[in-house]
Amino acid sequence: MNLSKKRLAHIVFESNDFASKTFDLIILVMICGSVLVEVLDSVSELHVRYNILFYSLELIFTFLFTLEYILRIWLSTRKKKYIFSFFGIIDLLAILPVYLSFFLVNTHFLIVVRAFRLLRIIRILKLGRYLSEADFLLSSVKASVTKIQLFLFAVLTIVLTMGTLMYMIEGPESGFTSIPRGMYWAIVTLTTVGYGDIAPSTPFGQFVASLIMLLGYAIIAVPTGIVSSEMAKRRSPEHHVSTRTCTHCGKDGLDPSDHYCRECGGPLD
Amino acid sequence: MNLSKKRLAHIVFESNDFASKTFDLIILVMICGSVLVEVLDSVSELHVRYNILFYSLELIFTFLFTLEYILRIWLSTRKKKYIFSFFGIIDLLAILPVYLSFFLVNTHFLIVVRAFRLLRIIRILKLGRYLSEADFLLSSVKASVTKIQLFLFAVLTIVLTMGTLMYMIEGPESGFTSIPRGMYWAIVTLTTVGYGDIAPSTPFGQFVASLIMLLGYAIIAVPTGIVSSEMAKRRSPEHHVSTRTCTHCGKDGLDPSDHYCRECGGPLD
Amino acid sequence: MNLSKKRLAHIVFESNDFASKTFDLIILVMICGSVLVEVLDSVSELHVRYNILFYSLELIFTFLFTLEYILRIWLSTRKKKYIFSFFGIIDLLAILPVYLSFFLVNTHFLIVVRAFRLLRIIRILKLGRYLSEADFLLSSVKASVTKIQLFLFAVLTIVLTMGTLMYMIEGPESGFTSIPRGMYWAIVTLTTVGYGDIAPSTPFGQFVASLIMLLGYAIIAVPTGIVSSEMAKRRSPEHHVSTRTCTHCGKDGLDPSDHYCRECGGPLD
Amino acid sequence: MNLSKKRLAHIVFESNDFASKTFDLIILVMICGSVLVEVLDSVSELHVRYNILFYSLELIFTFLFTLEYILRIWLSTRKKKYIFSFFGIIDLLAILPVYLSFFLVNTHFLIVVRAFRLLRIIRILKLGRYLSEADFLLSSVKASVTKIQLFLFAVLTIVLTMGTLMYMIEGPESGFTSIPRGMYWAIVTLTTVGYGDIAPSTPFGQFVASLIMLLGYAIIAVPTGIVSSEMAKRRSPEHHVSTRTCTHCGKDGLDPSDHYCRECGGPLD
Repeated sequence: MNLSKKRLAHIVFESNDFASKTFDLIILVMICGSVLVEVLDSVSELHVRYNILFYSLELIFTFLFTLEYILRIWLSTRKKKYIFSFFGIIDLLAILPVYLSFFLVNTHFLIVVRAFRLLRIIRILKLGRYLSEADFLLSSVKASVTKIQLFLFAVLTIVLTMGTLMYMIEGPESGFTSIPRGMYWAIVTLTTVGYGDIAPSTPFGQFVASLIMLLGYAIIAVPTGIVSSEMAKRRSPEHHVSTRTCTHCGKDGLDPSDHYCRECGGPLD
Repeated sequence: MNLSKKRLAHIVFESNDFASKTFDLIILVMICGSVLVEVLDSVSELHVRYNILFYSLELIFTFLFTLEYILRIWLSTRKKKYIFSFFGIIDLLAILPVYLSFFLVNTHFLIVVRAFRLLRIIRILKLGRYLSEADFLLSSVKASVTKIQLFLFAVLTIVLTMGTLMYMIEGPESGFTSIPRGMYWAIVTLTTVGYGDIAPSTPFGQFVASLIMLLGYAIIAVPTGIVSSEMAKRRSPEHHVSTRTCTHCGKDGLDPSDHYCRECGGPLD
Repeated sequence: MNLSKKRLAHIVFESNDFASKTFDLIILVMICGSVLVEVLDSVSELHVRYNILFYSLELIFTFLFTLEYILRIWLSTRKKKYIFSFFGIIDLLAILPVYLSFFLVNTHFLIVVRAFRLLRIIRILKLGRYLSEADFLLSSVKASVTKIQLFLFAVLTIVLTMGTLMYMIEGPESGFTSIPRGMYWAIVTLTTVGYGDIAPSTPFGQFVASLIMLLGYAIIAVPTGIVSSEMAKRRSPEHHVSTRTCTHCGKDGLDPSDHYCRECGGPLD
Repeated sequence: MNLSKKRLAHIVFESNDFASKTFDLIILVMICGSVLVEVLDSVSELHVRYNILFYSLELIFTFLFTLEYILRIWLSTRKKKYIFSFFGIIDLLAILPVYLSFFLVNTHFLIVVRAFRLLRIIRILKLGRYLSEADFLLSSVKASVTKIQLFLFAVLTIVLTMGTLMYMIEGPESGFTSIPRGMYWAIVTLTTVGYGDIAPSTPFGQFVASLIMLLGYAIIAVPTGIVSSEMAKRRSPEHHVSTRTCTHCGKDGLDPSDHYCRECGGPLD
């Protein structure tokens, strides 16, 4: 690899000097721009008026993203690894829809794939500052995964039982036309969203629904408790109990970074 | 009990080798399958089209569950204990409805009992990994039971008072036709579900409702606080019970930092 | 005061032997019964059918509560203090409505006063078990009072500003007919109740509403955080720092249950 | 500055003796009064009846606030700093609308600016008692800012993806007429507000909506966890960083209980 290619790779992949930060910023603006165009294009009044403008911008953004994609493959030292990496696939998904739309008639579903473009913003956020915080949040969530799985399983059991119960009590008159709809209602209620599109109308149904709501009240405390305690644990230093002991006086609980015993002053290994 | 029966009992009751894990997995798939059939059967479009298929599957699942139930009774060394245990009753409830439906005309209510089938999945989850986590969650909830009872009592007092108040202020025009309906509204509001099927329409009613909502805002913090603090407490290493035991007097639960037994004063290793 | 009167006072005011506990239980059942009668009486179908039964029960309960009230005054050593105490007023309010209804025509508002009867249940709950837990909850809430006041003030400022804003943006077409109604909507939204009786319909109104919801999302964390951290603080064992010290080596922080010093092995008193 | 002007400045700017506290109280009552007048004036029934009274009060309050504003400028030793300070601008915004309304016809938008009057109440709250608590709350929130930004970014990504998805699945029939409306629905759902003005009606849409709600359930735990753990951290005394420094090597952060420096082994005082 010659020097200018190495320099270009630095600009594209790193973000620690002016040139590479500017490159990242341009990509960020382009991603936000292309997402905005798609969002605005879905509003029918705007679609009618700015149809051609939106389509042109779409093509321009796609062309630029394609350039960036090719650039990244060309600059990668391990091309295969990049192409099949998480961000490599995201980058491909961000440009593919437009090319497919030239060949396909029903382009309706491509809009979702385009929504994945926003995921690319994550790439830009490697600005250091956020990373340790994100790490902290992710590791808190990861450590809680088994507990949250267990919790979700409990919620699903409640949802199934309650959905079936309300389907039986209320029947199709109140909108409980099937067990799946009853389960949908149970989720809407347990999560305290409460649209009101399906609501119990019989006194007994309202009584059972009240029980479910109070249950949901108690249940909402559980994930919060899990995450809170996990974060609190990660936070407080008391939880890295040291077992290091002074060989002279036997004093334990010494920090691994200590050089001398804080009890007798003897040197530590 | 001969050897092959012993082996069979191991497969059915344990889950620590290939054969017994496979047995558990088959039961798990059957439970999920039977629940799915019931859920889908409740959708009227699917009921019309796949009526016979669903009924056949129902009969097959019930037959297999019956086999399993008889197998479990036959293999139990203490049959009575199994039959009247929590899981024994669940297993019976899971097969009874279909047999009853042969004799009864109104089988509508049997559908709920069948929903209890899902509870059988818990049996399968004895796979070790989840148990300590479930134990943790359950013990956190158990330790909070008196506090949560107290909290629920406070909530019910608020619900009764507010339901009566709103019944008086709003009257039947806004849907507050009786105190129980007013209480139903108060629960819907306090839990922040908010269907909107009953909502205050007079300015004074809306003012009182606003107060209830702000109260609910403060109240929602309480169960979360209870569970969080309970979990945080359980988490902290002080609760990791030590198994260090004095070789002189047998006193256990000694700190790893102790030099002498705190019960008998004998030196510790 | 003679002995039998003293014994009667013990039964009425205490709850530590069979007779006094039975008395408390009878009062508890009567309170729940009278509340239930009132709740059921408000349901028009039941009112039509059981009108006379409900009224008779009402009179009987009121007569019994009157007896109890007179008994309590007669048995009190400091009568004035009881009459003007919290429970003394509650006891009077519980019987007054029925007597007033003999003289007044519009007895509609008396129903609320009767709802206060439930407050009398608190008296029964002096069974010891709950008290320390209630103390814990109350002291947690008390310690957070200034923080919660501050929080409520912030919420009201947001509600006033947002209610005015939405009143201006949406106008009467979407139900925002006045600033108070806008504030009612803001409370319904911020507390995540969301009836949907008033909802923004213009795109800009929906955008502002979205901001309010996300704000509410962040805000809901604050009271929970306050109460949780207050409870955790009260909970954690680090706050019951032991001051027990070994008389031989001066090692402190020993458990009250230790018999020998864990530092030097010397016997503790 | 002569003595009487100094005394006047003390009364206006401080609040530590009777005269200055009374001044603050009068301003507080005036602020609340002027806000109340505006709120009541927006109710059309009251506007029709008390039109002239409200307008007169409005003029009186504005005149008094103008006097106060001029007084504050005159008494300030650094006039420019006050005028362009946060409270200086708020004070100007509180009186400007009425003067502008003499010249402008469409005074509708001035009403929002007037709502900022309430912000002036904060000035009065400098009564000491609340400040340390407010400081605590603010510093907890400030310390969580990067984590909350990250969280909001994650929420917006979910909202964009889910809004697009539901726009595609449900289409205009259920109210999902554009991606922005889909995003509005996603926010209404994720925050568990759930108006029900837009709700999924197809089975698949309801299934996806259920997933979003369960996701929202897990997500609501995150900000609460962040704030809780931040508050708990600020609370616990372990985090009071020690400033004890070794006089030999300059190592700081030593425990008050240490006898010897853990860095250099030198004896500590």
